[in-house]
Amino acid sequence: MRNRVKELYTAGKVAVGPMIKFAEPGLVEIAGTVGSDLVSLDPYHFAIDHRDMRNMVNTAYSYGMTTTARCRNDPWEIMNLLDMGVQFIHIPTCNSAADLHALVDAVHYPPKGKRVSNRPIRFRDMSDAEYFAWSQTEVIVGVQIETREGLENLKEILAVPELDVVMCGPGDLSLSLGTPTDRYSDQIIELRKRIYFAALDAGKQICNTFRTTSEGLDQAAWWIEHGMRIVRMEPEYQLMRRSYAEMIQAVKQAGDT
Amino acid sequence: MRNRVKELYTAGKVAVGPMIKFAEPGLVEIAGTVGSDLVSLDPYHFAIDHRDMRNMVNTAYSYGMTTTARCRNDPWEIMNLLDMGVQFIHIPTCNSAADLHALVDAVHYPPKGKRVSNRPIRFRDMSDAEYFAWSQTEVIVGVQIETREGLENLKEILAVPELDVVMCGPGDLSLSLGTPTDRYSDQIIELRKRIYFAALDAGKQICNTFRTTSEGLDQAAWWIEHGMRIVRMEPEYQLMRRSYAEMIQAVKQAGDT
Amino acid sequence: MRNRVKELYTAGKVAVGPMIKFAEPGLVEIAGTVGSDLVSLDPYHFAIDHRDMRNMVNTAYSYGMTTTARCRNDPWEIMNLLDMGVQFIHIPTCNSAADLHALVDAVHYPPKGKRVSNRPIRFRDMSDAEYFAWSQTEVIVGVQIETREGLENLKEILAVPELDVVMCGPGDLSLSLGTPTDRYSDQIIELRKRIYFAALDAGKQICNTFRTTSEGLDQAAWWIEHGMRIVRMEPEYQLMRRSYAEMIQAVKQAGDT
Amino acid sequence: MRNRVKELYTAGKVAVGPMIKFAEPGLVEIAGTVGSDLVSLDPYHFAIDHRDMRNMVNTAYSYGMTTTARCRNDPWEIMNLLDMGVQFIHIPTCNSAADLHALVDAVHYPPKGKRVSNRPIRFRDMSDAEYFAWSQTEVIVGVQIETREGLENLKEILAVPELDVVMCGPGDLSLSLGTPTDRYSDQIIELRKRIYFAALDAGKQICNTFRTTSEGLDQAAWWIEHGMRIVRMEPEYQLMRRSYAEMIQAVKQAGDT
Amino acid sequence: MRNRVKELYTAGKVAVGPMIKFAEPGLVEIAGTVGSDLVSLDPYHFAIDHRDMRNMVNTAYSYGMTTTARCRNDPWEIMNLLDMGVQFIHIPTCNSAADLHALVDAVHYPPKGKRVSNRPIRFRDMSDAEYFAWSQTEVIVGVQIETREGLENLKEILAVPELDVVMCGPGDLSLSLGTPTDRYSDQIIELRKRIYFAALDAGKQICNTFRTTSEGLDQAAWWIEHGMRIVRMEPEYQLMRRSYAEMIQAVKQAGDT
Amino acid sequence: MRNRVKELYTAGKVAVGPMIKFAEPGLVEIAGTVGSDLVSLDPYHFAIDHRDMRNMVNTAYSYGMTTTARCRNDPWEIMNLLDMGVQFIHIPTCNSAADLHALVDAVHYPPKGKRVSNRPIRFRDMSDAEYFAWSQTEVIVGVQIETREGLENLKEILAVPELDVVMCGPGDLSLSLGTPTDRYSDQIIELRKRIYFAALDAGKQICNTFRTTSEGLDQAAWWIEHGMRIVRMEPEYQLMRRSYAEMIQAVKQAGDT
Repeated sequence: MRNRVKELYTAGKVAVGPMIKFAEPGLVEIAGTVGSDLVSLDPYHFAIDHRDMRNMVNTAYSYGMTTTARCRNDPWEIMNLLDMGVQFIHIPTCNSAADLHALVDAVHYPPKGKRVSNRPIRFRDMSDAEYFAWSQTEVIVGVQIETREGLENLKEILAVPELDVVMCGPGDLSLSLGTPTDRYSDQIIELRKRIYFAALDAGKQICNTFRTTSEGLDQAAWWIEHGMRIVRMEPEYQLMRRSYAEMIQAVKQAGDT
Repeated sequence: MRNRVKELYTAGKVAVGPMIKFAEPGLVEIAGTVGSDLVSLDPYHFAIDHRDMRNMVNTAYSYGMTTTARCRNDPWEIMNLLDMGVQFIHIPTCNSAADLHALVDAVHYPPKGKRVSNRPIRFRDMSDAEYFAWSQTEVIVGVQIETREGLENLKEILAVPELDVVMCGPGDLSLSLGTPTDRYSDQIIELRKRIYFAALDAGKQICNTFRTTSEGLDQAAWWIEHGMRIVRMEPEYQLMRRSYAEMIQAVKQAGDT
Repeated sequence: MRNRVKELYTAGKVAVGPMIKFAEPGLVEIAGTVGSDLVSLDPYHFAIDHRDMRNMVNTAYSYGMTTTARCRNDPWEIMNLLDMGVQFIHIPTCNSAADLHALVDAVHYPPKGKRVSNRPIRFRDMSDAEYFAWSQTEVIVGVQIETREGLENLKEILAVPELDVVMCGPGDLSLSLGTPTDRYSDQIIELRKRIYFAALDAGKQICNTFRTTSEGLDQAAWWIEHGMRIVRMEPEYQLMRRSYAEMIQAVKQAGDT
Repeated sequence: MRNRVKELYTAGKVAVGPMIKFAEPGLVEIAGTVGSDLVSLDPYHFAIDHRDMRNMVNTAYSYGMTTTARCRNDPWEIMNLLDMGVQFIHIPTCNSAADLHALVDAVHYPPKGKRVSNRPIRFRDMSDAEYFAWSQTEVIVGVQIETREGLENLKEILAVPELDVVMCGPGDLSLSLGTPTDRYSDQIIELRKRIYFAALDAGKQICNTFRTTSEGLDQAAWWIEHGMRIVRMEPEYQLMRRSYAEMIQAVKQAGDT
Repeated sequence: MRNRVKELYTAGKVAVGPMIKFAEPGLVEIAGTVGSDLVSLDPYHFAIDHRDMRNMVNTAYSYGMTTTARCRNDPWEIMNLLDMGVQFIHIPTCNSAADLHALVDAVHYPPKGKRVSNRPIRFRDMSDAEYFAWSQTEVIVGVQIETREGLENLKEILAVPELDVVMCGPGDLSLSLGTPTDRYSDQIIELRKRIYFAALDAGKQICNTFRTTSEGLDQAAWWIEHGMRIVRMEPEYQLMRRSYAEMIQAVKQAGDT
Repeated sequence: MRNRVKELYTAGKVAVGPMIKFAEPGLVEIAGTVGSDLVSLDPYHFAIDHRDMRNMVNTAYSYGMTTTARCRNDPWEIMNLLDMGVQFIHIPTCNSAADLHALVDAVHYPPKGKRVSNRPIRFRDMSDAEYFAWSQTEVIVGVQIETREGLENLKEILAVPELDVVMCGPGDLSLSLGTPTDRYSDQIIELRKRIYFAALDAGKQICNTFRTTSEGLDQAAWWIEHGMRIVRMEPEYQLMRRSYAEMIQAVKQAGDT
């Protein structure tokens, strides 16, 4: 079994799928029925109970999607996500190579890291040797660069060979830079570009999130043209908020006339 | 506490809100944050556990929305939904006045119906007399006309004074008429118009579901112009499927060039 | 997507998998990792909440297994199980052709039956026509003959063309025959053989449950030789109870010496 | 939207509500129906799953109550509680100003603290600037002083300007002082008074828990007279244990005569 | 294992315990820690998911309490409650001997009734013969008489030998008699006495619910004196509502002075 | 109430029970019905939600079994498990006496440790003094020695008087020693023997896990003979995987001939 996202970007192809924030396997199914390559879960910002997480990951497997998860840089949490079958772990606010080394220690087995012996039920048929090899090859390690400190240490972070994918969140970056109310300013846009291009130059993959609008598509197309091979679509709650809000406003207006 | 939907349509104003199919209170929150008047749940077609249902209804109250629920025409299920705080019950495939009388019996207390003594925690401060009066005034009774039999008995159904709202599903109507693969045919569209206008003529309110697209908006506006005061927006899964599918196709295309 | 069980027995091959009684998707995973063709769930005797059922079915899909479910002969419950993705519905205590006709009405769409319009998320990409055709071809209808009345009406039951699979439970059969404490008597064994062979003669498939012991294997092999193509293994709780009980007794004995 | 507890005590009025220990939203409803200003949850001592916590908080919003939560002094847990809509965070066993600074860092956004960018769904309509301002003004920071160390560092703790409310648990205080079996001793009572009056002198609010008995009411009245403006009522389990135990004893006695 | 409630009343002793309405096993624990003989659950009026019900029943076993459950007069639901380990089933609104016969059919195995073959995990070590005998002896059958029709048919209902316990709800009785707002009128009180004494005369046990107040205790003592041996205490939500409401009012008053 | 495991091994008798990995109380029931003395849960490697954990522990109490739990060496998690009623806490990968001292601090109240004031509902009837004494006497502290570091510090670990039970996992030991693919090598077997005998020599109890096979029984008997008094049986998933896999292979073979 290949990691579908890694298989795609290694072949130069684009992997795409939505962020899903709510702990509801049915939303994962939606991602699956439209042909997503990945579903991007977020136990960091939308805390998810273990039972729900397990069911969401298994549902993703039923559609052949790679589950990605953003989580705390904590060895026990990372171990559990991997033991549920997540194949792409990324942490928010990576500030230093030390942060990244801790992540790598949690993701990989000795000698590369310090993950302890266990694995998903789904992989129980493999021998120890086979599973350790699979895990070392297929599991993707990602970081978000989104603080002043992370920017300052970008070079040393990108130098870590076990790093696979770089992301960048505008909200925390603007908070960190002291401009909390302007996450879409030119300064933030430029900084994010700098981060992404540095990552590509260092031979890493990059991943960004785009709205499901024509503007979002244009941005995605621009980034694909410049080397991005992992495209995340906006989360269900953002899509729903925008679409329902516009419709309600128009319907109310129709009702008032 | 007024039933917000009834209050609006009684005043000639439009009530609007989405259908939510998955048993996830966060999706109800989305409906609430964009100013929906109602959230339309579906324990009939997407079976929902009691705990989840209760949490979704309470979440709707936290945004001042009316919860509507489609359910089996079963007195115990209807009693439970009302005892959780649902304020608008409607049944699918209403075939006869007898079906509707059974629904009314389940919704209303004696002497109007046969509901047994209980109520939501939220209404425990009312005296029995107050709550029975509130319930009789505020709870909305709705039916879907969506079978050949329902069409044939439309007149007697509309003659039942306790009926408040009429709906109509194209899928089951086309199944019932022996044209299962053409739910958007001219014949179905005409039949649905006939049902809706007959309901309006009988002094009932009507409710239909519309996509959150410009085409859906045009249809909604047309119906509002013709008297509809309850507008449901397409469910989360339909909106997500369409938006994500279009984006994925475009992104993949961008990746291939 | 084919129904794996139907595909196998239609090709003359044996489909095999365990009964799982507890509402735990991890147990479905166990079935999947050992190569089961089916997992046999039991919302009739071990009531399962909707959320759990959905997660178990989706987990079964992630291993390519067919989910079978035993349930009440109730149209709403059957509709919901089918709308979750179950592909094999069977009812206990089928006493008459009327019972079976009610089951067929619940399982199949018009004109064959009366199922109303809906389907699993997983099948949303099909057109209505495609899904109705898929459902009519792939969904398996089964009954348990396990009462005196069912025995008396066996011929008329077997004459219903929409019946696919026949099963037979010894416990209820012995209760029904007034010999409640002897479910493995020669009389019961003979009656069950009579039922199974009548079913095979009528062109139906048959399915029985066997222990995971050498004795259970011998029985399974005998029945396979005589035409059975759906083999269920004993449920987790029976296997665990026997294995743990034997070990505890032996360990306690070792401790006492 | 104001924090109802802060609004009340700022205006010199008393805020009151029960502690609820079990993870059951219905118990939150009880608090709401009797006019509580707050419901005091305890994910520290009665671990609560994320889904349950979210539902309890949303239920509290449906009654306009402020949810308070006692939790570990851990930035991720605090962030999640705030992102669910909790408006009053307090930690047990605050031993030093350093403990409190860590709490403040977790509760407040830069530059006051280090909370990362996110918020409850309920506040998504605010701009970043509005929400950061709201959060800084409305979220209440509390500590429990209940160790020898906390007592020793009381002055420096009270000197932290971001501290809003001081509490004090007798059980851990007596454990810490080496008198574990006497949590209601005169020594403990005096120490708690000292803590509370020092807090009031430092311009902080204070909060204590009282039984729903005439003795509890007298104590509450005394404290209100001396400046306390946040009154918590004993948890459901204590009230139920006392009331049911007394009744059972009396009923059994009646049965024996 | 004896049914503790039956063992007590058969010996002329009083069995006592609370009604618990919310689906929270912790509330069952409270009942257990204060020495309750029974815990009275209500899947009829406070719908409870299967997983929650199972956990509540198992928790009751951990304290040696008998679980009673009020439920619909539906064979599948009753079977499931018994298969979870409930030992006392009672139905609301028993209107006739036919209603009661349906209940008996659902509770007892052939030849006494029609329950199908299954049992709680907890009883798996018994042989079929042992369990059928245990079930026939120990499971308690109860009805609520609370309608005009039930009153009229009281004699024939009490004549059914399998009936063990009679209850009577004032709310539905007053609704049925056309005096919905006066459930504590003299008329209702007299009717309930008539029902209870008729039941005692017919050799049945009776069970009523009392508040945990001195007034409630006096009423309980009176009934015990007159033969009642099953005493239920008011549900958690009523006790909490009364106690918290009184305290809040007093505290607010203290704050205002 | 005695800790059944401690009571047995203190009397020189063997305590036995299965490891249960899935978060399903029904599996705990299986352990109970076959007479297990303990059920060994694993919130470390199979993350379990709080609600599920609580229900599993209460179910174990209903059968009089001791619940053991392996968890992170984290004071909050350990406190919560103890407050749910777990009576035997053990940590994986104990590398030093410092690790063990942290565990003891989390398990025991002052002055022995630093556990804060709380307890299971089930023990609320005890006075503080009684419960603290009970806890100090009955709760079992265990460690797994399974790293090179743990081996090197074995002597100092065994010298800690509060340590009760020593275990040893082969998988992590082989990972730690750089032979990840050979967990059943002679080297590992010898090391584990060395650890166990050193523990016995130091006056500690030991505990190992055995398959429910004749080979597993022989190994258990050998260890019992050499002093082991806590015998764990393989987890449900391993037993099920082996039994079902063998049966499937044989059935498929029977089907092919």
